[in-house]
Amino acid sequence: MNFLTGFWYAAGWSSEITTRPLARRILDQPVVLYRTEGGQAVALDDCCPHRMVPLSYGTVEGESLRCGYHGLRFDCAGRCVEVPGQTSIPPRARVRAWPLVERWQFAWVWMGNPEAADPALIPDLPWLDSPQWTCATGCVTYACNYVLLLDNLIDLSHTSFVHRSTIGTDAVARTPVKTAAEGDCVRVEREMHDTEPSRLYQKAGDFKGRVDRWQRIDYWPPSRVVIDAGAVSVDPAEDGRRINTRVINIITPETSRSTFHFWAFARDFKLDDRSMTDFIGDSLLVTFNEDRVLIDHQQRMLDERPQQRMLDNSADLGVVLARRMIDRLLRDQAAASGAD
Amino acid sequence: MNFLTGFWYAAGWSSEITTRPLARRILDQPVVLYRTEGGQAVALDDCCPHRMVPLSYGTVEGESLRCGYHGLRFDCAGRCVEVPGQTSIPPRARVRAWPLVERWQFAWVWMGNPEAADPALIPDLPWLDSPQWTCATGCVTYACNYVLLLDNLIDLSHTSFVHRSTIGTDAVARTPVKTAAEGDCVRVEREMHDTEPSRLYQKAGDFKGRVDRWQRIDYWPPSRVVIDAGAVSVDPAEDGRRINTRVINIITPETSRSTFHFWAFARDFKLDDRSMTDFIGDSLLVTFNEDRVLIDHQQRMLDERPQQRMLDNSADLGVVLARRMIDRLLRDQAAASGAD
Amino acid sequence: MNFLTGFWYAAGWSSEITTRPLARRILDQPVVLYRTEGGQAVALDDCCPHRMVPLSYGTVEGESLRCGYHGLRFDCAGRCVEVPGQTSIPPRARVRAWPLVERWQFAWVWMGNPEAADPALIPDLPWLDSPQWTCATGCVTYACNYVLLLDNLIDLSHTSFVHRSTIGTDAVARTPVKTAAEGDCVRVEREMHDTEPSRLYQKAGDFKGRVDRWQRIDYWPPSRVVIDAGAVSVDPAEDGRRINTRVINIITPETSRSTFHFWAFARDFKLDDRSMTDFIGDSLLVTFNEDRVLIDHQQRMLDERPQQRMLDNSADLGVVLARRMIDRLLRDQAAASGAD
Repeated sequence: MNFLTGFWYAAGWSSEITTRPLARRILDQPVVLYRTEGGQAVALDDCCPHRMVPLSYGTVEGESLRCGYHGLRFDCAGRCVEVPGQTSIPPRARVRAWPLVERWQFAWVWMGNPEAADPALIPDLPWLDSPQWTCATGCVTYACNYVLLLDNLIDLSHTSFVHRSTIGTDAVARTPVKTAAEGDCVRVEREMHDTEPSRLYQKAGDFKGRVDRWQRIDYWPPSRVVIDAGAVSVDPAEDGRRINTRVINIITPETSRSTFHFWAFARDFKLDDRSMTDFIGDSLLVTFNEDRVLIDHQQRMLDERPQQRMLDNSADLGVVLARRMIDRLLRDQAAASGAD
Repeated sequence: MNFLTGFWYAAGWSSEITTRPLARRILDQPVVLYRTEGGQAVALDDCCPHRMVPLSYGTVEGESLRCGYHGLRFDCAGRCVEVPGQTSIPPRARVRAWPLVERWQFAWVWMGNPEAADPALIPDLPWLDSPQWTCATGCVTYACNYVLLLDNLIDLSHTSFVHRSTIGTDAVARTPVKTAAEGDCVRVEREMHDTEPSRLYQKAGDFKGRVDRWQRIDYWPPSRVVIDAGAVSVDPAEDGRRINTRVINIITPETSRSTFHFWAFARDFKLDDRSMTDFIGDSLLVTFNEDRVLIDHQQRMLDERPQQRMLDNSADLGVVLARRMIDRLLRDQAAASGAD
Repeated sequence: MNFLTGFWYAAGWSSEITTRPLARRILDQPVVLYRTEGGQAVALDDCCPHRMVPLSYGTVEGESLRCGYHGLRFDCAGRCVEVPGQTSIPPRARVRAWPLVERWQFAWVWMGNPEAADPALIPDLPWLDSPQWTCATGCVTYACNYVLLLDNLIDLSHTSFVHRSTIGTDAVARTPVKTAAEGDCVRVEREMHDTEPSRLYQKAGDFKGRVDRWQRIDYWPPSRVVIDAGAVSVDPAEDGRRINTRVINIITPETSRSTFHFWAFARDFKLDDRSMTDFIGDSLLVTFNEDRVLIDHQQRMLDERPQQRMLDNSADLGVVLARRMIDRLLRDQAAASGAD
């Protein structure tokens, strides 16, 4: 139940936030997300202070949100501005408002100390807004702690076994990786020379023959993994044709045992080919659901056997470094909180 | 889990109790309800003392109930009168019988000390048996403590926001109430002059124009709320036409987190109009289900945040007085129990 | 959660174990069951030591099982024989293998100290493999501790009340039993003279008139009940026609609150009559499901009332002796474990 709070988390896609309030649990807090009639996206504690029913059952009125039970009305800062049937408003009648900024198609919320909520700390995800890239996007929810999803994304050797029908080939698990922590980033790199393209690459990139292929996995705490992956043909007939992709994984803990995985697959080719976007979106959904079955069950096994330790192998160095980084940040956070 | 036991609770409608045994949990006790062939309604502990399976899987034989597993047979007082395959009956072979009285279409059970079970303490609900009134009736089950349902019924200002399609109008929340505790009753009164009738009143009472409208909410511990409500036309063309209704709410805790709400809506007009009874019944079901979603969620929020206190506003005085009354009775009960 | 481990338990029917791994919980341990391409049935701990996902999501390759996540491969003894992408294999990379022997159509596993796993201790069930007998077989899962199922099978007086449409008649509960513990076996016998045959016997045995009927129930710890039952006609016109059956009950705790009941109904008549086998199988399934509803609910009641003791009657002597036997064995097991 120990979350890193001093970071921007994706509360959802911007398009999900409308004048119909949306209930979403983030870092195990109930949050109501809504858009005012003026267009501002707002995140409030999803609990009316009067009878403690969720404000997400309420309705947007202009720039305010009215509770659906007894009609108390709150502004975007969480201040109560109306109690039906009485003129005075008690000072306790307010709800917590979480800082929210929309950028790169996401609505980012800051669940920690609001004074530290600097929008400059929102990560750069230029592929989501650039005319040189086209994205397929989606969201998968897992019944596990977010760290197990990080493990999954940082060690892609599993793709050889789990995802043979989409993105995996034998070469991935066989190829050793270079792993390094650089500043606040863990990078795991793998280069596969003169190898068979995955089924997804065959279809998306029209590769008939063999390719050089790479994966550069960058992890930043607490829960962002951006994978620079691509292939270039080694078949002389294909004249060095090359595709570049980014798999952008923005992960938000819902609870300690459930996790939102907002993903985008960006490509620099066939930019206007809508059916290609659909094909890639469908393939990624298959892929992540193959993972989901395994890591949800992994969580149950970890909970059943608190004494047993996972056994890391050599491909897990990136995972180990990432976990160390999280542990260090949690210690820093605990120390700072103790110092307050 | 702290229930007031020195009261009659509705175990169900009399019509629900037949020669087919019915399992029902009341004040978190498993109860089997059945009617003997002679017509007596009986409430026994729903647990055969032999193998501890529910007696509700058994069958009525004459004036007795036979367990469906190994055939032990019990009379209406819970005494075992037959053990198949043996002649002697061990004295421990008996189950608790709860006092049960049928009145006003309900089967009332007394879950406390049976010596105190005075039928004179059963509340008067004459509208249910009177030829001057016609009732629509029903039962809704909530996933919350019964006290949250009391809050809902005592503070009707919520009808302006939750029940706009049936019984609510803007005027309700806007109109201040008079609140008073008189003896063992809390009364909350609201009079709305020259106001729009609710949609239900428009249809049921055929009001074309504006009305004077009243709500007189009487609460008696532990869990009875009778609402005297009605309207009289102020439109000269309608010649002072008036309708009277009673919304009778008989509430029985199933567990500390689930509640039976037996309700009747009595009217003094269109007494023989069956389709009107159906229309009112359907409307009330919609109405109570609108509440159910909110208060079931309210319970989950209260459980999630045991530290947070609800914030009462001026319309909540009746709710506050009712809760105080319950708390005082619980203290009395605990003191009496300690004195035994 | 206190299981007797020094016994062979049926992990399943041999036919259930194939080259597609099967996840099954036995004595509250997750077990993966699979058959190698060479035909050996294997039981391993269902938890890869690497990321702790179930090995049952993996695939059989020759004589080994490959994890479905990152591809670690294990032999039949649980030793890791391959870690993809690296040459060395850490010594900790192994999983527990449970002794498994196939006999009498069952796959038997030994969940205790493997050195004590003597195949000679597997119980004799010759009816399952004999040409003189034909069996209908099946498996029912209960949501209760296995001991409640033993109670059910050892005291057949319940058949008079629960199973009137299949195997029960009035005479069963009415007829006293002889009960005796002989060595490690509890035997309960009942002889019914000149009595009506059950519906199942009427149909299966073609009895038009009355019969002499017997039940000889043998219980061996921890969880085997074999019932020798049959009937012989007393109608002179039927010339002493006799049928013999065995109801073989091999019971395996899944958890402390769920139980596998592998059953076989063996008969010595109409050996090649397939529709008779189907009829008996269907009847037994109805019969056991009638029990299941009762004893699953019995378990919930026992859990709700830990203070209340079941009240044994005279037909329960066999049940009492069986429970004493289990308690003694549990004490022996605890003492032996303390002595280690």
